[in-house]
Amino acid sequence: MNPQPTASPETFSHFRERIALRVERVLEELLPAADAFPARLHEAIRYSTLGGGKRIRPLLVYAAGACLQVHESLLDRPAAALEMVHAYSLVHDDLPGMDNDDLRRGRPTCHRAYDEATAILVGDSLLTAAFGVLSTPGSGLSPLQQMSMVHVLSQAAGSRGMVGGQAMDLASVGHELAQPALEQMHLLKTGMLIRCAIQLALRPAGVEEQSRDGGALVRYADRIGLAFQVQDDILDEVGDIRETGKAVQGADRSRHKPGFVSLMGLVQARAYARNLLDEALEALSPWGAEADHLRALARLVVERSR
Amino acid sequence: MNPQPTASPETFSHFRERIALRVERVLEELLPAADAFPARLHEAIRYSTLGGGKRIRPLLVYAAGACLQVHESLLDRPAAALEMVHAYSLVHDDLPGMDNDDLRRGRPTCHRAYDEATAILVGDSLLTAAFGVLSTPGSGLSPLQQMSMVHVLSQAAGSRGMVGGQAMDLASVGHELAQPALEQMHLLKTGMLIRCAIQLALRPAGVEEQSRDGGALVRYADRIGLAFQVQDDILDEVGDIRETGKAVQGADRSRHKPGFVSLMGLVQARAYARNLLDEALEALSPWGAEADHLRALARLVVERSR
Repeated sequence: MNPQPTASPETFSHFRERIALRVERVLEELLPAADAFPARLHEAIRYSTLGGGKRIRPLLVYAAGACLQVHESLLDRPAAALEMVHAYSLVHDDLPGMDNDDLRRGRPTCHRAYDEATAILVGDSLLTAAFGVLSTPGSGLSPLQQMSMVHVLSQAAGSRGMVGGQAMDLASVGHELAQPALEQMHLLKTGMLIRCAIQLALRPAGVEEQSRDGGALVRYADRIGLAFQVQDDILDEVGDIRETGKAVQGADRSRHKPGFVSLMGLVQARAYARNLLDEALEALSPWGAEADHLRALARLVVERSR
Repeated sequence: MNPQPTASPETFSHFRERIALRVERVLEELLPAADAFPARLHEAIRYSTLGGGKRIRPLLVYAAGACLQVHESLLDRPAAALEMVHAYSLVHDDLPGMDNDDLRRGRPTCHRAYDEATAILVGDSLLTAAFGVLSTPGSGLSPLQQMSMVHVLSQAAGSRGMVGGQAMDLASVGHELAQPALEQMHLLKTGMLIRCAIQLALRPAGVEEQSRDGGALVRYADRIGLAFQVQDDILDEVGDIRETGKAVQGADRSRHKPGFVSLMGLVQARAYARNLLDEALEALSPWGAEADHLRALARLVVERSR
């Protein structure tokens, strides 16, 4: 009943809305029901995953899939698994023993809405569920594709990926980091999961990372991953709480967290983000209109105001 | 150079020692080096995983493998992955926001030896690494076997398994639980991971859980899983800190955690553990000497003093 996206090109704004709804529906279905036993835990899991978030990582999965002509149904579980890992990382990041944040997406953080023990277990559950979602039989992917997805996600999320970046981030508080160390930290903390979004879309397309096309898409991902972080620092400096739904002005800076704005100043940071955007778009030059959603997504990352 | 275990039957005590060393070596190899970046995190991961623990779950994997004539090299990664999940659960369980324990295996808990944020990230890393270990290509298992292992581990460890049991355990503090609820809690909290040890060994043997043999081994696992917990409660009541390496006498009871001893008394709890042992041994009746390590392991679970 829906117009076929391939028949007349879908606008990015329509694509974005459609995919956000799709991701919400897939997560709704894959997460245990709120009244499944133990109910309080499952309610907290759903609270921390559903009904919010920019869904940037799933959008990337589907946009890369569109570029490579992968059927969207093959991307549902990979995209949901990736979003679960992202959601778990936010829940644990917000804990009193970590960043001790009270607000997330304009709502109380999981440990504020529930309690600390529940928030620890919510994160643990979501991380575990992500691998369960990727390894369920009968998802239309071959066992080899599924295994490869489990592996790439575990590498991106683990101690030499996202969690390693969080450790580095915590260790950096109160220190000045030079630009290479700052970029290394962000590559681990956020970049590898963004790269993973692309890698997950490459698998069902049968495209290797080492190939020309695969390499170009990974390069695209790495540029927008870094641009995302630079823009985050800019918004942290100039954004207000109504728009970002978290923290206060210069929150990270006030805790002496190193960032691109404090390193290079606001004007230079903006120019850097713009430059990274140009490089990301350049990486997409082998493609025509089929990469338009990836292009628009790159612009969104740099031009967003929250 | 080693005597072939199959040539002359290996004693359980030799098997246990040999497997403990094997597990240690495999974990040593699979975990990132202590000086791998970020070094503090990796040091804490190794601190929390190596050089201690009874290795009951890996022992179960190899003992079931021996029963089913599976080559031990095919069990190395499954056993290590399972032990990583167990180690992560202890690190998170000990956190101030959970049980707030200072000692584990006679040493400071991870958050005491390092810090709370590091302990959160150590648990997250180990859980993620477990799935990485199971999904690495070239381990001698087929992708289908690997995927099935990832799936069974995620089900056993997640919100409807171990983590769900922890949530139920936390919710039970200060309440009396009747025996069915207490057993349900323990089935989730510890039983499903013990059952998982058997399930992981079934996969490379090509034995289905639904088959007669598979069903018998799962029944065996469920009995000793419960017996393990009953014995834990008994030791908690009568053990001393020198032997258990944790807590003080009646520690769980003093925090009003429900348990088998407080529910049925010490004498009845001991009889119950003995009865579960008998049922576990009964489940092994289809097998001859090849199940002797499983039998000895069942006795160890009930007769251990720590």
